[in-house]
Amino acid sequence: MKPDKILLDHGSGGLMSHRLVTETLLPAFDNPLLAPLHDGAVLDLGQGRVAFSTDSFVVDPIFFPGGSIGDLAVNGTVNDLAMCGAEPRFLSMGLILEEGLPFSDLERILADMKSAAGAAGVFIVTGDTKVVPRGAADKVFINTTGIGLVPAGIQVAPNRVRPGDRILLSGTLADHGMTILSQREGLGFGGPVQSDTAPLNHLVKKMLAACPDIHLLRDPTRGGLGTSLNEVACSAGVGILMEEDRIPVRGPVAGLCELLGIDPLYVANEGKLLAFVPPEAEAPLMAVMQSDPLGRDAVVIGEVLADHPGRVEMKTRIGGRRIVRMLTGEQLPRIC
Amino acid sequence: MKPDKILLDHGSGGLMSHRLVTETLLPAFDNPLLAPLHDGAVLDLGQGRVAFSTDSFVVDPIFFPGGSIGDLAVNGTVNDLAMCGAEPRFLSMGLILEEGLPFSDLERILADMKSAAGAAGVFIVTGDTKVVPRGAADKVFINTTGIGLVPAGIQVAPNRVRPGDRILLSGTLADHGMTILSQREGLGFGGPVQSDTAPLNHLVKKMLAACPDIHLLRDPTRGGLGTSLNEVACSAGVGILMEEDRIPVRGPVAGLCELLGIDPLYVANEGKLLAFVPPEAEAPLMAVMQSDPLGRDAVVIGEVLADHPGRVEMKTRIGGRRIVRMLTGEQLPRIC
Repeated sequence: MKPDKILLDHGSGGLMSHRLVTETLLPAFDNPLLAPLHDGAVLDLGQGRVAFSTDSFVVDPIFFPGGSIGDLAVNGTVNDLAMCGAEPRFLSMGLILEEGLPFSDLERILADMKSAAGAAGVFIVTGDTKVVPRGAADKVFINTTGIGLVPAGIQVAPNRVRPGDRILLSGTLADHGMTILSQREGLGFGGPVQSDTAPLNHLVKKMLAACPDIHLLRDPTRGGLGTSLNEVACSAGVGILMEEDRIPVRGPVAGLCELLGIDPLYVANEGKLLAFVPPEAEAPLMAVMQSDPLGRDAVVIGEVLADHPGRVEMKTRIGGRRIVRMLTGEQLPRIC
Repeated sequence: MKPDKILLDHGSGGLMSHRLVTETLLPAFDNPLLAPLHDGAVLDLGQGRVAFSTDSFVVDPIFFPGGSIGDLAVNGTVNDLAMCGAEPRFLSMGLILEEGLPFSDLERILADMKSAAGAAGVFIVTGDTKVVPRGAADKVFINTTGIGLVPAGIQVAPNRVRPGDRILLSGTLADHGMTILSQREGLGFGGPVQSDTAPLNHLVKKMLAACPDIHLLRDPTRGGLGTSLNEVACSAGVGILMEEDRIPVRGPVAGLCELLGIDPLYVANEGKLLAFVPPEAEAPLMAVMQSDPLGRDAVVIGEVLADHPGRVEMKTRIGGRRIVRMLTGEQLPRIC
């Protein structure tokens, strides 16, 4: 009989671990590569360049409007691979479970991971589970690590960013972060906000088909758009100028930000991308993005300059200019 | 000025995260693939089959005689890849840090990871760091996920195990698990025991060079030898007969096991392997193993039978036979 909670025994490596794997984990992700229960998966990747990316998820709460830690864990690594210009193929899953986690929560998370993997077109092919005593972790932490294939001719990297590049943003800011904040125990906000967690790889594939010369892709997750732009300005050694009134934020999200004194520029997104593209690619890429559900609200938010390398400036709504710095201080822990 | 403890800010994705990455993490693992600070690493793997394996480490204490969570995290995934018959190449590192972790502890762990990666000949090429509030995790958890290349002609898998196969064990049992137990707060054991954490890939490479036809490799970690043999008996659909008096256990480790009533058959090892090999390969492989420092104490512990498929039996010292079952119940949480 299956217990209704995760027990320390489930991390023993023994019988209970075996049952957890065969009765709960394998059925959740059944695929021929995962089945042999070996220490790792053996994959035939063919020839070419491979992208490899890892991300751990510690979001609190584990379920929230628009998704769960399960969706987030799959989409997050899928998106990191897509930002390398790669087509995501295989994911590993490392679970750290707290003793006492309700089994029903684990099953719901695994179901979300399976459906997110299906939507992204990736396979979870190897995994590991640890259980720690009550109080040594909070509910569940998930690491996903992914492998993707980079098509020939694609070179998406910070050193390809050039003055004159247009900066495209695929949609509204701050949906994920403000959803988590509104759900966080003790704050008790409600309202029609939900996480934007989504796999961006299909959109990226269409964008690269329309313009194989995209210079750089980034998903503005932790730290938000402001931090992502600063990272690019630093690593590419360029200046960036963005326009405040181009930045799309949904009404309820903007209201929540204003109420709490939070700048949406620094709030995490989980289903948005930034593309740095040559000027001639702006129009065809905007057309591709706006015809995709995940890029419907795409905008050109700014451009890359030779001036003030390493610095991000913003034209404000009232016509001034201000420096946009990297996020300093933790805005919200355990956002993803 | 660098703070002496991990702060929540270090997980923000903003400036403090950036500093943690550039000032602490990148210098620890400096290599040309890691440097671009992109969302993932892009690797040229050439042609062929790729092994992919993940493992999370939650060991408590994080430092212990013979190693640390850092060594363990690198060697554990290196060994999982080696058990696939692969030559480990690239590792990812996912850190979950508890607010308040002393920086000096983090640096010591990273130094251990770097030296373990050097010893194994692998590169840590991509990473991720999360920080959770005090009390939401215990000190540090590490996920490593690895990619290795499987040489042409090598087929190491449970379905290749055959009746008549000899079962070789590379050395003494229970060193890692009994070391952790002896260190665990409140138990206060001492004595000359230390973890056997070590990378097995170089030994495996020599073994595969001597006998490319090795049927199966396993590292008996969590759950110990008893559980590993049961997993093989189940997945290969064979019987296994082992001999109790062949099992090597160091004197102080055996003493500790006896004192505490713990069966060394079920205690975790972190630098030992099991090889299932055709009978004619026994002699050449034993010669290769015994000439390597990590296989010096290698023994033939038993053989594979067509009888009693799915069951492991042991010839006891007094001449009887008993069934060796899978570990039931958690012997020791957070052993790795």
